[in-house]
Amino acid sequence: MSAFTIKPSEKANRTVNPIRAIVDQVLAGPPSTCPLERIPLSLGDPTHFGNLLPPDILTTALKESAESHKYDGYVPAFGCPNLRSSVANSFSSSNVTYTPDDIVVASGCSGALELLLTGLLNEGDNILVPKPGFPLYEVIANSHGASVKYYNLNPEDNWQVDLKSLEDAVDSRTVGVVINNPSNPCGSVFGKEHLKDILSVCEKKGVLPMGDEVYGNMVFEGSEFFSLAEVSAEMGGKIPVVSCSGMAKQYLVPGMRVGWLMFYGEGLDALKGGVKNLSQVVLGACHLAQQASSVALDDGCVEFKKELNLKLQTQANAMASSLQGCHGLTIIQPQGAMYTMVKLDPKKFKDIKDDIDFTKMLLDEKNVFALPGTCFGIENFFRAVYCAPKEMLEEAGQRIREFCEDHKA
Amino acid sequence: MSAFTIKPSEKANRTVNPIRAIVDQVLAGPPSTCPLERIPLSLGDPTHFGNLLPPDILTTALKESAESHKYDGYVPAFGCPNLRSSVANSFSSSNVTYTPDDIVVASGCSGALELLLTGLLNEGDNILVPKPGFPLYEVIANSHGASVKYYNLNPEDNWQVDLKSLEDAVDSRTVGVVINNPSNPCGSVFGKEHLKDILSVCEKKGVLPMGDEVYGNMVFEGSEFFSLAEVSAEMGGKIPVVSCSGMAKQYLVPGMRVGWLMFYGEGLDALKGGVKNLSQVVLGACHLAQQASSVALDDGCVEFKKELNLKLQTQANAMASSLQGCHGLTIIQPQGAMYTMVKLDPKKFKDIKDDIDFTKMLLDEKNVFALPGTCFGIENFFRAVYCAPKEMLEEAGQRIREFCEDHKA
Repeated sequence: MSAFTIKPSEKANRTVNPIRAIVDQVLAGPPSTCPLERIPLSLGDPTHFGNLLPPDILTTALKESAESHKYDGYVPAFGCPNLRSSVANSFSSSNVTYTPDDIVVASGCSGALELLLTGLLNEGDNILVPKPGFPLYEVIANSHGASVKYYNLNPEDNWQVDLKSLEDAVDSRTVGVVINNPSNPCGSVFGKEHLKDILSVCEKKGVLPMGDEVYGNMVFEGSEFFSLAEVSAEMGGKIPVVSCSGMAKQYLVPGMRVGWLMFYGEGLDALKGGVKNLSQVVLGACHLAQQASSVALDDGCVEFKKELNLKLQTQANAMASSLQGCHGLTIIQPQGAMYTMVKLDPKKFKDIKDDIDFTKMLLDEKNVFALPGTCFGIENFFRAVYCAPKEMLEEAGQRIREFCEDHKA
Repeated sequence: MSAFTIKPSEKANRTVNPIRAIVDQVLAGPPSTCPLERIPLSLGDPTHFGNLLPPDILTTALKESAESHKYDGYVPAFGCPNLRSSVANSFSSSNVTYTPDDIVVASGCSGALELLLTGLLNEGDNILVPKPGFPLYEVIANSHGASVKYYNLNPEDNWQVDLKSLEDAVDSRTVGVVINNPSNPCGSVFGKEHLKDILSVCEKKGVLPMGDEVYGNMVFEGSEFFSLAEVSAEMGGKIPVVSCSGMAKQYLVPGMRVGWLMFYGEGLDALKGGVKNLSQVVLGACHLAQQASSVALDDGCVEFKKELNLKLQTQANAMASSLQGCHGLTIIQPQGAMYTMVKLDPKKFKDIKDDIDFTKMLLDEKNVFALPGTCFGIENFFRAVYCAPKEMLEEAGQRIREFCEDHKA
């Protein structure tokens, strides 16, 4: 017998992504016999299809930064001064003032969230997260021996927050609320008044609002993005807010792993100090990528962003139109980000009992891969990502339409 | 009163770099009145002076990867397949076989260490670390509510491990031993037989040997680097080893934040699985930087590395020669890495009581900044980094010589 018995830590054992097991269920069984080419509506990576490219200024800045050798060395653990200034400048407004000291850079927006939650959560604490919602919040909370409690988003009301469920979910161990706007997986965008209502609940209950705003400004005609900090400022600035964002989606470079936290309002100094302590362990994001991000943020890339939103809106509309009136499905028109949640009614199908069944059979018969709502905590929906080119999305819509007809009850 | 009382987590409070407080002591007091230009012998960033540049192939690969847009997207959390293959290939030998599955990429070697220790440590556990040694091990262990215990490196014996102190330090909660070779801060390199002795103690005590080999192969004439895995293989391969390395020092790009863990031997599957789980939270290092690293590793950069070692050796010799015979100091000839620890004898000085005093007064009077040994857990040494150009190191040596004469007892 070996002298060694090497066991992973409790934390490692607790760090499990629940999506994996669900996706495995969908992917279980023999490979699809469908002769059609696979259309993945599952991928949250906007760069996958090659139709969405980052702004030239970012690519040029990467190349120039590499060439200059000025960014080969270490950066301060909580981010290079240039980038912290650029973030502070581009996210400040007439109402909200950030200084570079309010910004902590991390390895992507996921890394920023992890820093924030690690800085906040003790064992036994909980945070409130949206249902449906992005599973990473839960993965991180569980990894700390903390947990999540859910508040509901209402599909009948453009996925707005059910405020009562939010208020009711707060208990004595609740330390914060994650507000993801625009939403993954819903593609919904909250209006200003609704955000005020949400912040009022946070204030009443004394729990920290945390904005996951990685899709901020990725909104379509008729919707407007308001940051939590902006809304808090308009309410008098008494409600502190910590938000995260990053380059991944808005600049189409998720692989660059540059994200950040922004601390707004009073009473956050101790938390910010704690987060900065934590950032010293891993020493942050790639320096080169930080510098290039700084250049892109300083430029603003206004035209690029306008075009990106137009493209995404066109793709979203193509997806939605091709599914409109489809048997057994209900389309909720997306307002932003890159996602839509499509509702399905199992009673309308002869042999489909739920969303896992639906996505599994759709993959097998039509080689279209979408994630079941169960991955995001809600049954009998599927999430469709509309990053693929318009024609591919229309083709996917057509196949889904045929699939639904084939299985009509 | 605000509705919000936002406190950082226990973990954030525990995550404190002990160097900071010591350096603050050295930097305390009025700014230096010395008219000479500052020479920082404190910086472990080899890129600071501009005399040490990364290999061209790496810079070119960065630019080409940015231009191609093939590396804008997400990578698997534990590393891009290209890089894991490249690491596996370049670290395999006739005795040791790594597959890409044995490699986990992280945000720099610090990130790799953090992943490993997070995967291993529960509250109350401990790891053994060298004294003197790099303080990050302690920062990470403390952040988990675990702790470190020290084994001694013997300055009289080229900083080899005091094996008895190693064996004696193991207790029932010891889960692993960090072996840093070549050493920061000592600049020493362990021979093969010595490494066998160290591994034998680990085997006898059933504690996991963990190699911090970020300076691997950065050795000078007369020394040879042996990886722990290589030595374990030669001993029959029964002793599992997890080692970390990265691009930072060997390729002169610490800002790129690309490092990795390598799992060798049996009994590590559970730990490796746990570490891979943990890696899913932050989603790893910059894709572009991973791809460029892969290109550089595949190339091997043999000439570049040979030249780098020669340069460092020349600089190390210049530093050592200029301090040789200096009043009150004992030089231990460095064998590798970028560091040397210089011993000082307070009894030989009229008004210097310890290493903190020495470095503080040296900074004030001669504007030469070196870190006191206390930063690394050992008193009455100072660490000198020899990354600066030869002439600057000689100038620093001259100033230290004068300083020591001025304060002669």
